[in-house]
Amino acid sequence: MPVRDEIPTPALLLDLDRFEANVARMAGHLRDHGKAFRPHGKTHKCPEIARRLVAAGAVGSCTARLSEAEVFAEHGIPGLLITTPVIGAAKIARAVDLAARAPDTIFCVESEQNVHDLNAAAARMPGVVLNLAVDLYFGRTGVTPGAPALDLARVVAGQSRVRLAGLQAYDGTAAHTTPFEARRARSTESLRHAVETRRLIERDGIACPLVSGGSTGTCLIDAGLEGVTEIQPGSFIFMDLEYASIGGPDGAKYRAFAQALTVVATVVSRRPGTAIVDAGYKAFATDRPFAPAPVDLPGATYAWAGDEHGRVDVSAVDRDVKVGDRLEFVPPHCDPTVNLYDQIFALRGDTIEGVWPIAARGKSQ
Amino acid sequence: MPVRDEIPTPALLLDLDRFEANVARMAGHLRDHGKAFRPHGKTHKCPEIARRLVAAGAVGSCTARLSEAEVFAEHGIPGLLITTPVIGAAKIARAVDLAARAPDTIFCVESEQNVHDLNAAAARMPGVVLNLAVDLYFGRTGVTPGAPALDLARVVAGQSRVRLAGLQAYDGTAAHTTPFEARRARSTESLRHAVETRRLIERDGIACPLVSGGSTGTCLIDAGLEGVTEIQPGSFIFMDLEYASIGGPDGAKYRAFAQALTVVATVVSRRPGTAIVDAGYKAFATDRPFAPAPVDLPGATYAWAGDEHGRVDVSAVDRDVKVGDRLEFVPPHCDPTVNLYDQIFALRGDTIEGVWPIAARGKSQ
Repeated sequence: MPVRDEIPTPALLLDLDRFEANVARMAGHLRDHGKAFRPHGKTHKCPEIARRLVAAGAVGSCTARLSEAEVFAEHGIPGLLITTPVIGAAKIARAVDLAARAPDTIFCVESEQNVHDLNAAAARMPGVVLNLAVDLYFGRTGVTPGAPALDLARVVAGQSRVRLAGLQAYDGTAAHTTPFEARRARSTESLRHAVETRRLIERDGIACPLVSGGSTGTCLIDAGLEGVTEIQPGSFIFMDLEYASIGGPDGAKYRAFAQALTVVATVVSRRPGTAIVDAGYKAFATDRPFAPAPVDLPGATYAWAGDEHGRVDVSAVDRDVKVGDRLEFVPPHCDPTVNLYDQIFALRGDTIEGVWPIAARGKSQ
Repeated sequence: MPVRDEIPTPALLLDLDRFEANVARMAGHLRDHGKAFRPHGKTHKCPEIARRLVAAGAVGSCTARLSEAEVFAEHGIPGLLITTPVIGAAKIARAVDLAARAPDTIFCVESEQNVHDLNAAAARMPGVVLNLAVDLYFGRTGVTPGAPALDLARVVAGQSRVRLAGLQAYDGTAAHTTPFEARRARSTESLRHAVETRRLIERDGIACPLVSGGSTGTCLIDAGLEGVTEIQPGSFIFMDLEYASIGGPDGAKYRAFAQALTVVATVVSRRPGTAIVDAGYKAFATDRPFAPAPVDLPGATYAWAGDEHGRVDVSAVDRDVKVGDRLEFVPPHCDPTVNLYDQIFALRGDTIEGVWPIAARGKSQ
């Protein structure tokens, strides 16, 4: 195992104490509120992290995509819920293969055609019945809650090789609504529609066990809502500049979870006032209007300097910054930043406890 | 081999006819001007592409980083020039190992300390002499052209286990300067300083064979400049929205090279006026102020819709767009987009001629 100061940069570091505290806090919060915990694996794409979440009480893992779920299944992660519809003959055939190996996997659907396609494909594999969740629309994908969702649930119930697992009720807009009270209003309203839709379906005589939704931003709200059965937060394990900025119940910063993820870079060039580090667009996702934030370097600011470099203004920094120095940064947005790396260095203080493969990195298919 | 319409999406597609035309145009242009061709592998990170560039006359490949160069060397690519200084004991030891296997590799330096560190490490490996290029400063990394560069060249010349290969003279700002005549002025000025610096060094009795610089944006200019020995363009093989926008000698679009790279996505959700595709921040780099541009779908526009999705406005599109349809997009910025994928599908029309591993993907260390 290399020592911390020899990790080749740029690299992704995980502070295990903070990570474990985040996991314990979320698991305890959901347990206290009687909600199941199905964290979203699109954030970390790392089977070792999924395994630790299950050890902490998670029922399984969401994944954004089929290919991510395939990797997690290969590593023995149970309870997979794939939150994007699986479209196209080749992928549907793979979905059926996956369900044969991991029969508790849940697939999201939003169209009658997709239900029929999945049912027909399952019928070609003896013994496979696919668990489907009707994806509810809150502004991006899915079918409108209420009658349209009921119609689709009836289509599912009418087929022999698929069954209704429940409702996928993720409102991506609610997750980042600011301030907290506006977020509360939005998430409560969305999940109320989901819970009403579930009642509508069950009054129709169709079992609808799950209402799965929520996020890192809304978990403090959603866990208290009756009828929601499980929460699927992702970013809480790592946190990032964006999630810190959305506001919490007690102010402008969201402090429910600790910043556990950083990128470490090396100063490769130095001029008066400026240190160039070896971390640019290939080391941080750039989709947010924040630059990476230097850690433990008061007065320093980072600016993008291309694919491979960042320009750190050190003119107001009260210590010498030299070529070869290692600087850490909090990433603006964790999920797509993690997706740039093949591994994450899990640190206990300065000791590397593990180097965990991000085995589903790039598995967006 | 899958057929084109079964490639799992999102995926990276390369139009081989256009790619080959781009390569032939660049190789011919540089040959006509008597310049060596050392294309930059940070763009593609793909040994198969590096191999094809060498077959077209390239003397080797630049790489941004040591780890990229290690991958290329493993695949037999000659003439590596690593354009970021190699800093730190662990990486320097790897650099010496690489030089033992690939003795024509060139390493960039900008500080006396780094030269001494490299020389000392080389002295521990029998037979290794490291080729160093003094990196010249044009706004980011490197040493100031002129006397400071001469001083560093003298330090190199004074050591026994390193030798001066020449000057690394890449001006990243020139590459995207708009319009073309301003770009010509900037690049000509920068490379003039580089060529003068080389004369200064050679008048000092130190051989300085190479002046390596230029880019896709400036290659039409730089190839005509006396004293520049080689050009290191990257993006010309693929092109992207940004490079198309920088202007050429004949107008607002830069048409010297053809758009050969696209991302193919699948429509996974459909509402009136909107098609949601399975390609978001994990499928395209987002560092440019352009959204991906739909191909062959007049009237359509793409907007970001999160890590995993894009929202295509199809309200003005004159044909039916259905769930399951495959849409192609030109990426805003090729290098960091390619860095998101494990492979590139090389197409001749609708036939997949190859699936090329992007073996150095994520190798930013």
